Amino acid sequence: MKSINLREKFCLALLGVCITVTGANAAKRGDERIVYDGDYVKSREEHGAAWADEDASLQARLAELEAKYGKRPNIIHIMWDDNSLGQVGVPQMNKVLGFDTPRINQMAREGISFTRMYTEPSCTPTRTAALTGRLAVRAGMHNVGFPPHGMGLHKNEVTIAEVLSDVGYQTAFVGKAHQGDIKQSYMTNQGFDYANFSMYNQFPFIGWQPGGMADGLFKSQWDKNYTIDSGFRPLGFVNQLEGRKGEAPRVFTGNSRPEYTKLIRTHQEIVVDYIKTNADSDKPFYLAYWPHVFDPARAPDSLTSNANNWVAQSLEDMDRDIGEVLDALREAGIAENTVVVAMADNGPMHELAPLTQEPWFRGGKGDYLEGGIRVPAFAWWPGTIGEDQIVGDIVTVHDLFTTFISLGQGLKKIPTDRVIDGIDQTALLLNGDGHSRRDYYHVYTGNFLAASIKQQFKRVWVGAKRGLIGEEFTNVYTDPREKHLKMPPYLWAWAPFDHMKERHEALIRKYPHRSPTHGRPYEGIANLSAAAQAVADGVPTTYE
Amino acid sequence: MKSINLREKFCLALLGVCITVTGANAAKRGDERIVYDGDYVKSREEHGAAWADEDASLQARLAELEAKYGKRPNIIHIMWDDNSLGQVGVPQMNKVLGFDTPRINQMAREGISFTRMYTEPSCTPTRTAALTGRLAVRAGMHNVGFPPHGMGLHKNEVTIAEVLSDVGYQTAFVGKAHQGDIKQSYMTNQGFDYANFSMYNQFPFIGWQPGGMADGLFKSQWDKNYTIDSGFRPLGFVNQLEGRKGEAPRVFTGNSRPEYTKLIRTHQEIVVDYIKTNADSDKPFYLAYWPHVFDPARAPDSLTSNANNWVAQSLEDMDRDIGEVLDALREAGIAENTVVVAMADNGPMHELAPLTQEPWFRGGKGDYLEGGIRVPAFAWWPGTIGEDQIVGDIVTVHDLFTTFISLGQGLKKIPTDRVIDGIDQTALLLNGDGHSRRDYYHVYTGNFLAASIKQQFKRVWVGAKRGLIGEEFTNVYTDPREKHLKMPPYLWAWAPFDHMKERHEALIRKYPHRSPTHGRPYEGIANLSAAAQAVADGVPTTYE
Repeated sequence: MKSINLREKFCLALLGVCITVTGANAAKRGDERIVYDGDYVKSREEHGAAWADEDASLQARLAELEAKYGKRPNIIHIMWDDNSLGQVGVPQMNKVLGFDTPRINQMAREGISFTRMYTEPSCTPTRTAALTGRLAVRAGMHNVGFPPHGMGLHKNEVTIAEVLSDVGYQTAFVGKAHQGDIKQSYMTNQGFDYANFSMYNQFPFIGWQPGGMADGLFKSQWDKNYTIDSGFRPLGFVNQLEGRKGEAPRVFTGNSRPEYTKLIRTHQEIVVDYIKTNADSDKPFYLAYWPHVFDPARAPDSLTSNANNWVAQSLEDMDRDIGEVLDALREAGIAENTVVVAMADNGPMHELAPLTQEPWFRGGKGDYLEGGIRVPAFAWWPGTIGEDQIVGDIVTVHDLFTTFISLGQGLKKIPTDRVIDGIDQTALLLNGDGHSRRDYYHVYTGNFLAASIKQQFKRVWVGAKRGLIGEEFTNVYTDPREKHLKMPPYLWAWAPFDHMKERHEALIRKYPHRSPTHGRPYEGIANLSAAAQAVADGVPTTYE
Repeated sequence: MKSINLREKFCLALLGVCITVTGANAAKRGDERIVYDGDYVKSREEHGAAWADEDASLQARLAELEAKYGKRPNIIHIMWDDNSLGQVGVPQMNKVLGFDTPRINQMAREGISFTRMYTEPSCTPTRTAALTGRLAVRAGMHNVGFPPHGMGLHKNEVTIAEVLSDVGYQTAFVGKAHQGDIKQSYMTNQGFDYANFSMYNQFPFIGWQPGGMADGLFKSQWDKNYTIDSGFRPLGFVNQLEGRKGEAPRVFTGNSRPEYTKLIRTHQEIVVDYIKTNADSDKPFYLAYWPHVFDPARAPDSLTSNANNWVAQSLEDMDRDIGEVLDALREAGIAENTVVVAMADNGPMHELAPLTQEPWFRGGKGDYLEGGIRVPAFAWWPGTIGEDQIVGDIVTVHDLFTTFISLGQGLKKIPTDRVIDGIDQTALLLNGDGHSRRDYYHVYTGNFLAASIKQQFKRVWVGAKRGLIGEEFTNVYTDPREKHLKMPPYLWAWAPFDHMKERHEALIRKYPHRSPTHGRPYEGIANLSAAAQAVADGVPTTYE
């Protein structure tokens, strides 16, 4: 429960105006210069003084840790695809679903389980949010890229890797980036010292190959009579690149299923090796490990008892891999100076692939319902994050940008010429339940605002019904599956939600969204095949 | 995982026939004389020898305990209304739903959480199942009684209280029985030494009063012009009785809301007092505490943060009460000689009352879907039931009858002239996950078989679609919400499920169901009001 800060109120009432404690304290760390969204600004006005006091105590704890370990904490952000809150990390749900995630369950018991971690509803926007601390729509990254798109993250977006590099971290990216296929969007051009990253998602690996699920892609499937535009179908694309900052990346693997199966293992080995190699470095590290995870290329007899379900088996394998990462940290002796956040990037894709269960919430990937955006998430930092915590506060993937940078003492390097949606949640990590500084979230699907969440209430702006009647409300405590979206009991919330939206839109008028960034795909890749180059040459770079 | 018992198989293969170890060992305890349903008999043929070995080891442990404490274990069965697996006992779900059940969560951590405890889909049948160990339909108790019904549990049904009384237990019933309003059905006439029990459910307390939800019941609401049959509306009914075995029970409370609120507290006090009073008795006790729990008569400012939701608040109160029961056992020094099973009686009534959330499963009370029959359930027995277990085996409320009687060494007293559905699950309680002796359940709604469950598969016999196409299947691991009931992937299971149903129905032909038992309500109540007597006199006792 957040209480009104009486000290600040009193000051305002007696003096009419006074220098707020908030600004004064926050200025020391750079936080006050950041352009935040309306509802956080409003809350900071109410609680700023208390938060500043809490921050002072948190900074003292972090300074102690830095003195003890001789450097700021290492940061690992593990983020996988398409998973709903409850599918991993809850032992009862393991039994319900018939597969086991003992290592994530253990991670949860050794740290925090978040029960209201919100993401954007799809891979690309969530990953943009984690990288930039911004709603993806602000960065023009609300679209989902497929090969060969000629689209991606703009070079002027400032990523967490750039900020943390700037304050002395070494940075690495391993796994799925899905931030586009244009040169400026490569992770090697977005601040990472090392990156082994895919430009798109897993579909090209899993299904876009002869005999796979892609209907009509391959030459053998082309219409023999009427095909005029031979460039319509992309053959020869590439997905996974590897490189170092400032160098031309190289294509790391082909697109076949065996290569993909191997890639998943290789990524895990790169991560474990990275931890071992950098454990004793003078510099702390930031590592984004966003594994591909899902692999249908399995012999049936290797599958879990959750019969014939490679999604479940993939999650069991991921669970083992996450356990190995934590083991590696312990074995390297750096567990107590490393914060690990592990989470999914959005809800399950169950409408498209019923193999991915929908255990708790309604809706799935792409959807503004809880099933699309409320993900399993865990934080682990032995000795600093207390054990066995269930945290019910609202927190979002955007917050990790600001929080990790705060832990790295880099708040002053966050750009101040744009809106930053991520809020510093150091207090939530270190002090636990009830210490979030966020009580709201604006949920975008594509480039429009679909719903807004405040406390346990949610208002749908563009719902299943057309027009005014579609502006339904729900209470996600009493109706967690959002089956009874309705208006009359929540008419008291009509104006407050309108005001919230107006605050949000006023700031957009001041800081307009970036348009999607287009360009020629695959530029600057050292070893691009002729076939991929030919495909890239056919992609339009302008639409006028 | 159950492995095929090779020893037994080998014996059969070599000798063609041999005396099974099963029969020989089980005979010592009386288990082999009981008439069980087909699928258990089939499994016992496969695993009997291994189970007999396990039983011998379990009996040795129980004998040690009896020697240590000087008596067989006390048994407490707590069972509340209308709750789905996950609504209590899972800390992550507490945060999801916005209310807390810390004491049940603690109970779970100190013992077993069952994740596949199945009940019948409604109060009356589930309670009959717990009392008799039989599918309620076999006892003619598939109907739900409301005042004044003139219907109830037949005197020739043998209850757990009768069997345990017979082998030296003292027995008590406190709370909601819902086993009917005819004299033979009173808990005081069904084996309980002491009973404070309601004949119906909570609706008469909660809503059947002036200003309540009952439309048209009260004289002020009667049609002034056309009411001819003045006996159609029941005025003057009673619900809660108290008495001792063999004595005429007395009406314990009126039906007003304040009296109901007080009754809930009184029941809790009776239970705690019963534990204190009987802790040092020479006789062990069996206590059925089936609390009323749900109380809408609350000041709004006393409610939990799960705003204005008295169902959530009632569950928080129940959680506190269950904690008090466990505390009382510890304080009385008998916790380690007392097994407590706490559970719900069926799924939430969310179709009728959306206040009761549907967090995990589809369907609710009355339904054959998992949401109707898969309930939260916990077992606690410090020192004997291991801590922190999540048990994914199938177990049903019927099994508690046989299991509790087995713990009380009363298997030989279970009647052998009828089908007993309850299976002795002592191995599951003491040895945990993977030790259930049940892998099936036949789900009745009313008096017809609606679905059958085997392993993780379920076949619907009377589904949402008419005729053959309604005979759908599901896998409750991969589709736990039963959204994708379908036939083609499970045609391999068509014949096996048919065979299972044929085994079940063949036994019914041999042991036909009892018809519902009718009679004059309220006979033998010591202090019945004239108004209630008048109502009782108007109830038909025959329908021919």
